[in-house]
Amino acid sequence: MSNLVPTEMKRVALASRPDGRPSTENFRLETVPLRAPQDGEFVVRVIYLSLDPYMRGRMDAAKSYSAPVEIGETMEGGAVGEVIASRNSRFNVGDIVTGMFGWASHAVSDGTMVRKLDPSLAPVSTSVGVLGMPGITAWVGLNVHGKPKAGETLVVGAATGAVGSVVGQLGKIAGLRVIGVAGGAEKCSYAVEELGFDACIDHHADNLKARLAEACPDGVDIYYENVGGATLEAVMPLMNVGGRIPLCGMIAWYDKGGLGAGASEGPNLLPKMWRTILVQRLTVRGFIVTDHYDHFPAFLAEVSGYLRDGRLKYRESFAEGLENAPDAFLSMLQGGNFGKQLVRVSEDPTL
Amino acid sequence: MSNLVPTEMKRVALASRPDGRPSTENFRLETVPLRAPQDGEFVVRVIYLSLDPYMRGRMDAAKSYSAPVEIGETMEGGAVGEVIASRNSRFNVGDIVTGMFGWASHAVSDGTMVRKLDPSLAPVSTSVGVLGMPGITAWVGLNVHGKPKAGETLVVGAATGAVGSVVGQLGKIAGLRVIGVAGGAEKCSYAVEELGFDACIDHHADNLKARLAEACPDGVDIYYENVGGATLEAVMPLMNVGGRIPLCGMIAWYDKGGLGAGASEGPNLLPKMWRTILVQRLTVRGFIVTDHYDHFPAFLAEVSGYLRDGRLKYRESFAEGLENAPDAFLSMLQGGNFGKQLVRVSEDPTL
Repeated sequence: MSNLVPTEMKRVALASRPDGRPSTENFRLETVPLRAPQDGEFVVRVIYLSLDPYMRGRMDAAKSYSAPVEIGETMEGGAVGEVIASRNSRFNVGDIVTGMFGWASHAVSDGTMVRKLDPSLAPVSTSVGVLGMPGITAWVGLNVHGKPKAGETLVVGAATGAVGSVVGQLGKIAGLRVIGVAGGAEKCSYAVEELGFDACIDHHADNLKARLAEACPDGVDIYYENVGGATLEAVMPLMNVGGRIPLCGMIAWYDKGGLGAGASEGPNLLPKMWRTILVQRLTVRGFIVTDHYDHFPAFLAEVSGYLRDGRLKYRESFAEGLENAPDAFLSMLQGGNFGKQLVRVSEDPTL
Repeated sequence: MSNLVPTEMKRVALASRPDGRPSTENFRLETVPLRAPQDGEFVVRVIYLSLDPYMRGRMDAAKSYSAPVEIGETMEGGAVGEVIASRNSRFNVGDIVTGMFGWASHAVSDGTMVRKLDPSLAPVSTSVGVLGMPGITAWVGLNVHGKPKAGETLVVGAATGAVGSVVGQLGKIAGLRVIGVAGGAEKCSYAVEELGFDACIDHHADNLKARLAEACPDGVDIYYENVGGATLEAVMPLMNVGGRIPLCGMIAWYDKGGLGAGASEGPNLLPKMWRTILVQRLTVRGFIVTDHYDHFPAFLAEVSGYLRDGRLKYRESFAEGLENAPDAFLSMLQGGNFGKQLVRVSEDPTL
């Protein structure tokens, strides 16, 4: 299979920008020519495509920390693939690599930001999950910005997701009391039974605020913020003096471009929040993980060790085939995924 | 005068809690017995009472970083006074001291949190202003939480107030571009002409956002936040990547107990703000100056030096007589003060 380099590839392009919640209409699956590699380039057959909440932001035209995907261009995305042709001396046919190959069956790369994987370390799909961008997002947010101290209480939203599940387990290893918030009884049960969280609150059930307060009798010292909306509103009154809020996402608000009114937040929410930040002397720290990739070696050494020891677990959900990427992505934005969401684009030769 | 210890004192008590904007109805001037000092105590004749925005918070019953003033109790406040009787070996008759003596003509103290002043250092009124709590609030917020680097742009609200005026001048000394926001042309002119700010925007005039943007062509690196409301809303879109927002007050929102809807903030403001914190990787840090009094000696040495050298200016407004404290306080909350607001309660023997 590795020696057969096709002349065409499949890809998912951004067909139009969403107005509010995105739909399959905004995506277009198409076949386009796969160009031959130039000197210094190589061709990758994509095995796994990673689906991540940040991609929602790339669909909007608004200024963000990264440029938007242009209409008609391939959707951006991290992926794992196999080198099937190479004119680059650092990458050889058969190498398993990870990089920003996009929502596509193949990619031509010059090696920029591409990392060669060691399949003996862990399943290669983890390089876009627990041992990749979501994992280091968890690690940096908790350790660098959360500054955990044993005995403190940590709350994390999207608790069984690719980031939240790592945040919570690292929190347990650091000696914290860890409370998750997740959608549905099955996820909550998984967070407690499998991941070892002290408790997990179902945000689909009534009275999130009261149940969260009950689970945090000593208040909250670190709120790892990746959801916004009702979870944020429920956590804020529980924050202890000197609390930290590392902020790396707000999935509950993405469909409004981060601008809209949600169901629960009233016009008074900003003054109320500002007052809590002041009175409780909180630190709210927005961060983008790519600013912190200098920590990658330390993160990888530490977390791959936990994986080997079985101290840290992860769960993956696979959509089958590139054509199913849009549906899987849209479902994930509504919390339909359970664990790290991937698309199996082609056969994994390391299994 | 120093040797005459009266048996009665005047004080301003909290008569009732305000519902929204406070009024003179919420205060009561009364004469009460002045008790004799016990062993270890001394009696202070208050010379200057300091009026500060934080006192608004003490009028509400809501949990804050300090306990509320109870109905019928003396309003809390820092003051400067003269010791007129003493059974405490550390404090002698004639000493000029500063402490939390309250809105009152006299106080009995055991010396807790009382500091003896050196009248040769600076006018003693500065011990509750530029060389006291407002000054160290400015110093800590700018230096500890703002982390200024020469060449950066600083925006500060309430620019000619007791805190803002020091923030801006320390910013200039640190090599920053300093933009103030203040109410009215006279204050703005003072900030530029006397205090040396690079520009000052009048928030009473139209189009605050556009004029602020014009004054900050390189964006904003530090927003020293002590006002909230429209100023906050105007600054946020200008924040640069890695910006810092030390947050020590929100006077625009105090009358709603920090909870209400203001004229300008819409229901979308929190998601919008959260998105800016994330995308621009901002640090928002609430702080209460009393957590940082370990810096007091360094602050005092540095800022009293600037005063002596004439590098740092200050302006004081005096209300005459304790009976005028409520009116002066209410006016200050609406921006009616110009510089540090004090009440001259009795004669200053050091002048």
